[in-house]
Amino acid sequence: MPNKRIGQQTIELPLRPALCGNAAFVGNKEGEGPLAADFDFIASDELYGQESFELAEKQLYLDAINLAITKGSSKPEDVQFLLGGDLLNQIITASFSARELGIPFVGLYGACSTMAESLCIGGMLLDGGHADEVVCAASSHFCTAERQYRFPLEFGSQRTPTAQWTVTGAGATLLSNAPKSPPLAHITHICMGRVIDLGITDANNMGAAMAPAAADTLLALLADTKTTPNDYDLIITGDLAQVGYDLLVQLMREQRMPLSPEKYVDCGLLIFDREKQDTHAGGSGCGCSATVLNAHILPKLQSGELRRVIFMATGALMSTTSSLQGESIPGIAHAVVLESPMGGRKS
Amino acid sequence: MPNKRIGQQTIELPLRPALCGNAAFVGNKEGEGPLAADFDFIASDELYGQESFELAEKQLYLDAINLAITKGSSKPEDVQFLLGGDLLNQIITASFSARELGIPFVGLYGACSTMAESLCIGGMLLDGGHADEVVCAASSHFCTAERQYRFPLEFGSQRTPTAQWTVTGAGATLLSNAPKSPPLAHITHICMGRVIDLGITDANNMGAAMAPAAADTLLALLADTKTTPNDYDLIITGDLAQVGYDLLVQLMREQRMPLSPEKYVDCGLLIFDREKQDTHAGGSGCGCSATVLNAHILPKLQSGELRRVIFMATGALMSTTSSLQGESIPGIAHAVVLESPMGGRKS
Repeated sequence: MPNKRIGQQTIELPLRPALCGNAAFVGNKEGEGPLAADFDFIASDELYGQESFELAEKQLYLDAINLAITKGSSKPEDVQFLLGGDLLNQIITASFSARELGIPFVGLYGACSTMAESLCIGGMLLDGGHADEVVCAASSHFCTAERQYRFPLEFGSQRTPTAQWTVTGAGATLLSNAPKSPPLAHITHICMGRVIDLGITDANNMGAAMAPAAADTLLALLADTKTTPNDYDLIITGDLAQVGYDLLVQLMREQRMPLSPEKYVDCGLLIFDREKQDTHAGGSGCGCSATVLNAHILPKLQSGELRRVIFMATGALMSTTSSLQGESIPGIAHAVVLESPMGGRKS
Repeated sequence: MPNKRIGQQTIELPLRPALCGNAAFVGNKEGEGPLAADFDFIASDELYGQESFELAEKQLYLDAINLAITKGSSKPEDVQFLLGGDLLNQIITASFSARELGIPFVGLYGACSTMAESLCIGGMLLDGGHADEVVCAASSHFCTAERQYRFPLEFGSQRTPTAQWTVTGAGATLLSNAPKSPPLAHITHICMGRVIDLGITDANNMGAAMAPAAADTLLALLADTKTTPNDYDLIITGDLAQVGYDLLVQLMREQRMPLSPEKYVDCGLLIFDREKQDTHAGGSGCGCSATVLNAHILPKLQSGELRRVIFMATGALMSTTSSLQGESIPGIAHAVVLESPMGGRKS
């Protein structure tokens, strides 16, 4: 069989697996932001009717997956794999959700890049004929992440200007080779990233830590596919937020692949109104890109408003142990090229 | 394209990807055990020349990967993906290793099932033509795991009889569609498991938590492939150790698929001499099955001493947070069927 790799790092998916079910469940702060109308469900508080923040995150995760499967006109027992992860130690959100769903489980960890990682792997498994239907999911929760990675919430620590606000939310996408409902989009290419580290050590400046990885993957994808940013209606990064956004713009300009402000957006900037919502640099967490992709981007691909986009989620691969031991923060970025069912080019 | 799934949960890999480079680096306690002669390298102490246990684990990981690639007559720049994980929060061993290797990175978390999870995904990517060469890896380290999951080492807590001893070691396997060195084995089938939880809450009794998941996956694989344990020269579980081994034997007997003691082994029982080495129920950690597979099992497949085996690694998917919140411990098991290059049946 000929290798489907083109160029150095990009892989073409000739079967063009379909994204055919999408769901995004978010917390109340996200529900007060600019994308409020797009989400499937907005929780009234951070506990979402559960006894702990961790149980709340799991319930958001489960509800998003079940709705994505339903919207894709399928049933959990017909789904071959759950490809998912989250930010918590030992990805307990995904694992405990998989326990309740009974779907064979592929546990992933890509920090905030997880939604893109799951689409890359899921896309390849469908394209290879190893599955007909898989569900991809990722989540984060402000309260579970904050107390795990930074400070107890009760401590009330002041946030630095470069800090990002972890999104409370879960996004899920059903992928299928034989969609039972009208496709939202198709995956045509995937590009999985290398781990890049330019020496950032400030865990409150993850945008800067992740931007070099975003540039590395984006440049590889563009070179491999012999395209430029102008060949896409939109390039969407995961959660670089303002610091990382500006840095990626600068890095791409230096590489003579400039990103125009009209055609480049970041999920961390879309999900919150930074001025009114006091989120500093913007949103983060794997729930950020997972919910924005599913709620805001996929419907625009389905309608044809967007014809061809790059969705690239970025992750910062540190732990509290690595940070305490003085390690810098490595970043990673995984990308998928998505095309509208109406075709990849506007007529 | 026809779906390569057979039965409910098993997937056939018609291209039969080759395992063609294997390496196992272990700590000094493992080097005093029954498999000492099989390992590629035995560290003289738990620090392996590094300043912290975490850096030691990363160095074992890197060294195992580089040796597996070298033994497979390849180079890191020709490897398309590193599929790997470990037990530490945010899989920092794998992530920081990927940073140094520069190979596009697929971060996995399957707890102690990670080696099998990586072989399942890697096998499918090769079989689908999405890659020609990938490296799969997993590790654990007694000192990093003990202080993360249980108690500070200095505390010197007494261990319960059901407790397992986390293996210090890293195993890596190079997979290729076009091996440049003689293959060790071929992957013919994979079976990825569901998350099963029968309510065990004792983090010192992981064998019991994982055995039901092992039974679930093994029964699915046997039913899907219409085989019985007698059709295999050996069934190898990841790290159930003595408690989980006995329980799996009992569960399989109840399902009328009895495992004979001559044809069923567990990596957690093979790696230590439980009487002399005071490891209680036996070894655990994703480094356990990763090192035993690479050092002890693959050479026997290459020589033809074993012709057809099931390698099934098991994982306990809990975190300290989930345990403190009173959650039980869900288990998972992923399996691959490996055949000798001399053929799947003895003549």
